[in-house]
Parts: sequence; structure tokens; C-alpha cells
Amino acid sequence: MPQLRIALAQLDAVVGDIPGNLERILAAARDASDAGAHLVALPEMMLTGYPIEDLALRSSFVEASRTALDGLATRLAEAGLGELPVVVGYLGRAEGETDRLGRPKGSPQNAAAVVCGGEVVASYAKHHLPNYGVFDEYRYFVSGHDSIVVRVRGVDVALAICEDLWQDGPAAAAKAAGAGLLLVINGSPYEAEKDDVRGELCVRRATEAGCPLAYVNLVGGQDELVFDGDSLVVDAVGDIVARAPQFEEHLLVVDLDLAAATEGVESTYADFTIRRVDLGLPEVAPHQPARPTVASWIEDEAEVYGALVLGLRDYVRKNGFRSVTFGFSGGIDSALVAAVAADAIGGENVYGISMPSRYSSEGSKDDAADLARRLGAHYRVVPIAPMVEAFADAVELTGVAEENLQARVRGVIVMGISNQEGHLVLATGNKSELAVGYSTMYGDSVGGYAPLKDVPKTLVYRLAQWRNKAAAERGEEPPVPESSISKPPSAELRPGQVDTDSLPDYPTLDDILDDYVERDVSARELVSQGFDPDVVGRVFRMVDHAEYKRRQYPPGPKITTRNFGRDRRLPITNAWRETT
Amino acid sequence: MPQLRIALAQLDAVVGDIPGNLERILAAARDASDAGAHLVALPEMMLTGYPIEDLALRSSFVEASRTALDGLATRLAEAGLGELPVVVGYLGRAEGETDRLGRPKGSPQNAAAVVCGGEVVASYAKHHLPNYGVFDEYRYFVSGHDSIVVRVRGVDVALAICEDLWQDGPAAAAKAAGAGLLLVINGSPYEAEKDDVRGELCVRRATEAGCPLAYVNLVGGQDELVFDGDSLVVDAVGDIVARAPQFEEHLLVVDLDLAAATEGVESTYADFTIRRVDLGLPEVAPHQPARPTVASWIEDEAEVYGALVLGLRDYVRKNGFRSVTFGFSGGIDSALVAAVAADAIGGENVYGISMPSRYSSEGSKDDAADLARRLGAHYRVVPIAPMVEAFADAVELTGVAEENLQARVRGVIVMGISNQEGHLVLATGNKSELAVGYSTMYGDSVGGYAPLKDVPKTLVYRLAQWRNKAAAERGEEPPVPESSISKPPSAELRPGQVDTDSLPDYPTLDDILDDYVERDVSARELVSQGFDPDVVGRVFRMVDHAEYKRRQYPPGPKITTRNFGRDRRLPITNAWRETT
Repeated sequence: MPQLRIALAQLDAVVGDIPGNLERILAAARDASDAGAHLVALPEMMLTGYPIEDLALRSSFVEASRTALDGLATRLAEAGLGELPVVVGYLGRAEGETDRLGRPKGSPQNAAAVVCGGEVVASYAKHHLPNYGVFDEYRYFVSGHDSIVVRVRGVDVALAICEDLWQDGPAAAAKAAGAGLLLVINGSPYEAEKDDVRGELCVRRATEAGCPLAYVNLVGGQDELVFDGDSLVVDAVGDIVARAPQFEEHLLVVDLDLAAATEGVESTYADFTIRRVDLGLPEVAPHQPARPTVASWIEDEAEVYGALVLGLRDYVRKNGFRSVTFGFSGGIDSALVAAVAADAIGGENVYGISMPSRYSSEGSKDDAADLARRLGAHYRVVPIAPMVEAFADAVELTGVAEENLQARVRGVIVMGISNQEGHLVLATGNKSELAVGYSTMYGDSVGGYAPLKDVPKTLVYRLAQWRNKAAAERGEEPPVPESSISKPPSAELRPGQVDTDSLPDYPTLDDILDDYVERDVSARELVSQGFDPDVVGRVFRMVDHAEYKRRQYPPGPKITTRNFGRDRRLPITNAWRETT
Repeated sequence: MPQLRIALAQLDAVVGDIPGNLERILAAARDASDAGAHLVALPEMMLTGYPIEDLALRSSFVEASRTALDGLATRLAEAGLGELPVVVGYLGRAEGETDRLGRPKGSPQNAAAVVCGGEVVASYAKHHLPNYGVFDEYRYFVSGHDSIVVRVRGVDVALAICEDLWQDGPAAAAKAAGAGLLLVINGSPYEAEKDDVRGELCVRRATEAGCPLAYVNLVGGQDELVFDGDSLVVDAVGDIVARAPQFEEHLLVVDLDLAAATEGVESTYADFTIRRVDLGLPEVAPHQPARPTVASWIEDEAEVYGALVLGLRDYVRKNGFRSVTFGFSGGIDSALVAAVAADAIGGENVYGISMPSRYSSEGSKDDAADLARRLGAHYRVVPIAPMVEAFADAVELTGVAEENLQARVRGVIVMGISNQEGHLVLATGNKSELAVGYSTMYGDSVGGYAPLKDVPKTLVYRLAQWRNKAAAERGEEPPVPESSISKPPSAELRPGQVDTDSLPDYPTLDDILDDYVERDVSARELVSQGFDPDVVGRVFRMVDHAEYKRRQYPPGPKITTRNFGRDRRLPITNAWRETT
């Protein structure tokens, strides 16, 4: 069997930065060549970044992607890498007839180019366009019809892009085409435990294709998405033989024994044509296989925490910030955000602001200061009483209006310091609060990015505990003050207030939210499972009523199967109420 | 030729309010029956409201729609309306095989039911699903395959739903089926001048179908969409014979002479089957035709103004508010919003707040008070100096940070009064400002609804002038103070500030924005048209950079071809910059 050393470049692309992404691709190709690779693959839409949203509809952007692809081919050849085939995702333009939705040729395509010998020698357009959850690919792309098989040094390599792998067809087509390797380039966003599903899927498709499968994914944060990498290679019998670590860039280099290309295999499968391209490169001489990376699977909390850190770091970095600021309340949410921020960009780039009111406990003030000390964060104290009193003198505000006033005074202070000093503001609210509207618009919800937007409150606690435990295991001081974890959660907006005055206890609340928000379970079904009908009814009403608040909330990293951004799209004006 | 009196019920549905919409349908059927109609048609998704977004993905909601449809059939028969065929849009469920995207049966469908004799006798599923602009119908629905022709008192009536009319096929299918009438139910949102396009389209399709065409549309506001009605009937030679007024509910009753149904016509067209249902109702005796409404086309400003009024009224009403509040600055934007609000819900339900600073001119304060007087609005004055000083004492804020502080203090006051008194807050910013980020987050941008969100500044002026002229023509006092129109626009956040310190003059700015935002014209193309490259470059950068602000802006009514909500979806993290 011919040997082939393949390199999977798990890279962090920047949306819209075509020249920068081109340099990243070139550098990875150089590294792959230095590692002796015979083929290097880069993720879906690596050249443009992903997802590009409505940039796909701009002619100038499509042209820039196509021009850059030609430039990449030239640059690779100039760098002496002309004999290293590079498979890379880019934004293409359909050249065939109309697609199965009847859209005209010339429409944008989500495509994979094969670059070799200074030229773009083949292009594969994604067959299956995801149009659910966070994806809107029918808005942007026309789907491809053809299968592509590229002969690389005596091995036939079949191509696929991301969703193609999740649908039946492409693996079977690779088998029909007699492929020796199925190469899949991906832009697959993180969700908790998705790595398990993804691993199982690759195993199943490799078995169906009857050949090894190589899977390369993006890594990095892009607005609400975090790409976790998790690139891997599965052999023909379904064993995972290589795996890149999650949440960091990595060049995964693997030696594979692959079936030799044969003539006389099928040239069509189902309703599409199998197009074949021979790169004309000689077979590889037998060589000692390198020992590939096989990153181990990490525990759930470590994985979510890693996603939050990468999401925050990339949002800060890619948007030109260097530091962050937000209120340090002494509570668990702001403490976890501070720990994530310190891990992402360094404690010295975190600017904590304690903004005590007359309802703030001494314990909370101490915890806030202690947090800053543990992280090496900047810290200042701005008591809010003078501003609150100035408003109260001017306008009569009582009850919830007065509670909101305190939160909004804090919002104005944080935004003022951000404007004055140039820090990105982080909103510290969690998913449970956002679900039920337990927050003040333009108060605690101000910010450019909300790290815990998709993290339920019970998981906030687990993450803080996990992070402290991890620190302790490394002999470091745990970042989150113990009393921020142990004291009852409170907004401290009136004397003696605790969250359970207004909400069910968080374990119950999160149980209901997990069913309602993430899986559309009906109120009736929840009651039949034993939940209190009054509690279910109240939680459902709170969730439905809070849609207007969510619509103005900052973006934050998706970590669940259904976040409050693109995943769950509901009208604000909505009279539908589930009955229990 | 058989005669048929048809009634098109242009109604305002409430999303999610299935029981309420059912009552609205029943009432319209009664009115149609009282008017002697032989067939009544209601808009797309009338039973559920439209668009329902992710409600379509909830089993409980789909079941509620189907159950209500059966209930409607029963209620109609009980009300003695069993012999009046009712064509109505609802949320159905596919019963056939997979659709052309390969999605399984059982998926939701955007459907039209024919109800007669106490039963649902036929159902047509929309063939063409729009998935561009504000529409995401591939996310929700599977498309239909069959054509439906219903024999109503000797006339074959072909059905279509909205986008079907904009695509080739359905009109030709109606002709192939030998239809005597093509009936189209719609949920077609307002855009400036869309009524002209729509009218022309109906004329063209009627000609293609070779029979009259009846078009019934929703009316009313739903979050960012305003449905303008504009229901109409075109005869077989392409003359518009009836038209409902825009922006109000209307039952359009028309007598038509229609071709008699014949046997032996086609039972297939292209790749779909023509299914036929005979309601078994006798032909109508000859009768004197009623004189139908033919609403005249109104001027552009009147139309946009009508959309703003209806959008605001329905957002307030459908979300359970009775009054609105916002800052009266003395400027043109807040004056126009006040006029729209007074027209929508009455001046007595408008609560104006003047919040002068030391930079506010006497003229602005006078104009604000004058505006309130002209509209009969509530009015109070809350000087912001004490609060601004309290913040300035606590935190050092200079330059833009200090300007933003003033806007945010106003935001806190408005939100406090809203929380205390229960008014909906309106944000008064216009599309030009929102495009270039000329606003303060959590300052002038606070609010639940933003009436001018999609209105460019130059159009703000035209609308104010038009509204004043209309008042004068009716012998009423013009609502907008003349000096709010005539003085140079200024945020009044520092001494002598005018908008043109930071922005090109508004006619130039709006010209560029119209090209860039609404039509994706490239910077290079604009320069080749003669625009100053520096100005183009600066405006493009401001627009690109302000995406994060737009993401947290309140919803507002879409009136252009591309609004800043669902129509234009760009990443916040985006390094792409057009070069001039």
C-alpha cells in the first residue's frame, strides 16, 4: 500500500482578513513541508474566515477571495512548495448550471480548492448546506453537484466539506469512487460534548467509505461561535489514530498506509458525477511513520472553560482591544468572568470596578477586592450613592424602578471608564438570568461581549469549582474566592434580597430551561414529568416575556446546543403561551 | 360566464394568538357572507400570524394550528357559513414524501386551507420558499409539490401563496389547469414603492394565467415588519379592478365574470400534479355587480409615514402598552417620532421629557415645549446637570466619554420614568446615524422600539415637511415646529457642536449609504461615480465599525429594501475593508 504523510492545519482564521489568512495558510504549508508532509489540508472557508454572513453576497468580496486563491497558488510555487498539494476552503462562485433550488450560476459557493504546481487544479463545492441552528447557508450558497477525487502520489483522495459528513451520500460516494482517503475540511462550532458526537460520526463514515478519514477543523472565536479544532484522523477500521488538542492551533501530521488508486471504478454516484484529477506526482518511497499526536479527551468543565477562554481572547484580539473592564460585585458570575478574562488575556489587562451601594454587604466588597488580588487585576472602588441620590432627587423612582436605577448607574460608570480608557466592557450575566429576564437593560447588561451568555447558573458554579480545583492541583492559588461560591446568590439591590425571592432555586430553574429553551419540550410534558405546574407556567411566561431584553444583549460564546443568538429565533411580539 | 362575488379580508393578525386570529377570521367570514360573497380569502398564515419564526419548530404550536383549523371549520358551519368557502393561511404539516431538500415528511408547511361544509376540504402548501432578505423559510418549512384547483360554483380557482407569485411556474400552472381565477394569499411586508412592483407583478401574472388574479395581503405591524395590505384584484386583461387601502383593515368585495370550469384540462404541469376538488356548490344566479373599492396610490412620503404609524401602533398595542415616553430634544428626529406617536396612539398617550444640559440651546428647549403643546403631549423638564456632575465627581470623563455621559444620564432618566410609569420607551435615532454609529450606546439609543431605525435623515426631513403640509391642508396646526426643521442638526453635547463636525452633510451621506448599505455597491464603484475617495472611505469604515452598536439597537419598522435587522447580516468581528 502507498504511504502518505498528511498534515491537517488546525488554524484560527480572521473573518474578512483575506490577506492575513493567506499568510496563515502559507506559513502552515511551509510547516507541513518542513514536517515532510505530502498533502496539507486547511479548514472550511480558511481563506475568508467563517462564517462570513452577508459578505458572501458582495461581489467585491467574492472577487477578493478568488483573486487571493490564485495568488496563493503563485506564492506557494514561489516558495518552493509547488509539489505540496494544498486543500483549502474558500469562497467560490458557481460555474455550472442552476442548483437544485433553481438559483442561477454565478452564485457564491462554499468550496474547497486543490492547489498544486502553482495552479488551482480542482475545486469542490459543498453538497449539503446546513440551514438550521446557527447556520443560514441556503441564504448564501448554491450547493455543488460533483464529487472530486484527486490522485495524490498514487492515492485517490475524495473531498467533502463539513455538513457533507453529517449527511448520507458523500462517504458512500467516496467508496464508489474507490477512494483511498476521505478528506473533510470543516468549520464546525463548539457545543458541549459535540466532540464525542463528531468522533463517532468520523468513525462511522470511515467505515462506510472503507478508507481512512481525515477531519480538519477551524479553531478560534468568531462573534458568538467558538471553533474548537478537535481535528482527527480515523483509519479504515474506525480507530482514531490522531487527534489535535481543542482550543489551540495545531499542525496534525500523520503517516497513513492507503489503498493504491485503481482504474475502472465508478464515475458516477447517485445523481452526481465523480470528477477525477491526477496531480501527476510520483508515489512516495517507503519511510518510517512519524508518531502522531493523539490528544486525550478532557472533562466537560475543562472543555467549556476552554471554549470561554478562547472565545473571549479572540473577541478581544480580533476587535482590536487589549483590556477589559466590568463590575466586580463579589458574586459568582463576575468572579468567573474575571477568572476567564485573566486566563484569556492576563490579569494585568483586567480592570475591575467595585461599585457598592448601601445594600452591598461587607462580604461582597471584601470578595471583590480579594478576587482582584488573586488575579493580579486592576481594581478601583466607585460608590454609587451620590449618583443614585442625584437621580432620586430629580425623578421619583420606587420599587423595581429604583432597583434598576442602581444597576443603570453602575452601567454608566463602567461605560464611562471604557470610553475614557479604551477597555472592552464585559457583561457578566449568565444564561439562566437572560432566559427569565432577571437583569436590568442598560444596567448589568451593558457590554460588548458577554462570556457567560450561554452558561446556565448551575454550570457557572461547576466551572468556578473546576477552575479552583485545577489551580489547587497545580499548586496555585484558586482564582475564585470561596465565599463567592458558597454564599446565596443575590443582586443586592434591596435589603436582604436573594435571587430565590423572584426565581425558583437554580437547579430547578436550569432543569426547566434545559427542556424548554434548548429542546422545545412543552409545558404539558414537563408537568407530566413531575414539575410543579405553577413553577413551569411561571418560568415559561418569564422566558417568553424576556425576548425583548435578549434582543439587545451583547454577543457571547455559544456552548450549548441552542444559544440565545442565532440558534433560537423568536418574535418579540408573540402572544403564544404554552398551557400546562 | 359564471359570476362570483369574492371577498378579500385584509386583516391584522397577531403572531401566536391562534384563538384571537380564529375569531378575526370568523368575523371576516360573517362580514363577507353579509356582503353576499361566494368565496372569502384571508392572508398567508392568518391563523398563526406571520412570521412566526422558531415557533414553527415547536410541535405544540403546529398542533395548535391544526386543531384550530378544524375548530374553525366547525365554527363556520355552526354559524351558518358552511356554504361559504374560506381560503385561509395556516401552519400545516407535510404529509407527503421528503421535499426537494430531502427533509422528512412531518415537517412544518406554510399552507392554505380550503374550508367548506364544516370540513377542511383541501390544503395547498407553498411551493417557493423565500430565503433572502428578511425571510428564512428554508429554516422552517418544506415546500409543496401539488397544485390545487378548487371548483367553486362552476369556476375553477387555482391557489398560490406569496413567493409563488414572484417565481415563474404557478401562473403558468393555473393556465394549464384551465383556472378561471388565480387566488393568491400573502404576507408581503412593506417597502417603499413595493406597491408599484407588486401591482405590476399581479398584472403580469394575471396575463400569464389568462384569468383574473385576486391578491390578499396581511396588514399590521410585527416587530420590524409592517404589512401594508394593498390587496387587489386584476382582471384577465391586466386591469386593476379593485384595490384595498394600505395600512388599515379592509374587506374588499368584488364581482367577477369568470370562465366556466371545463373538463379535460391538464392534470399535471412541469413536475407537479394538479389536484382538483369540487365543492359541489351550484352556480350563482346572474346578479348586479357591486362597485368595488379602488384605493388610489398615495404619494411616497404619505406611504412611509403610514407605515411608521401602523408599525408603532401595533408594536405598542400587541405588546400590552398604552403609552410611550422619550426625550424631546427640540431636534427633528424626536419631533418626527412624537408626531408619528401622536398619530398612532394619541398625543395624550405621549410622555415627552426635556432633559436640557448646559449645552442645550434656548431654541431647542422652546422647540421641545412647543412640540408637546402642538401634540397635546405630556411634558416635563428634568435638567441633567446634577447627575452629570455626580458622575464627573466620581470618575474622570473627558472628550467623547463626557459627551456619552450626558446621553447616558438621559437614558437612565427615560428608562426610570418608563419603569415607574409603565410607558414604552422609544429610541429616536434615524438610519443614517445608526449606519455610521453616530449615537451613544445606552444613551440616546435606549428603548423598546425605534420608529426611525430604517429612515435616512434626509427622509426624516421630507416626512416632517410632508406631515406639516398635510396638517396645513386640513386646516390643522402643523405638528413639527418649523425651527426643528430649519436649524442645523446638532447632538448639543458640546458648545457649538453640529453634526457636520463629524459627518459629511446628510444629502451626501445618505447618497453613499443608499449605495453601500442597501445595494452593496463597492467603494471603487462609488469613486468612479465621482464621490470623494476620502469621504467614501471614511463612511465605509464608520459603517463597518458600527456593527456592534446596531446589534444592540431596538427593533424598528422596515421601510427600505434593506434594513439593519434581518435584511443585512454582517459579522461584528470583521476585518474586511473595501478599498477605494
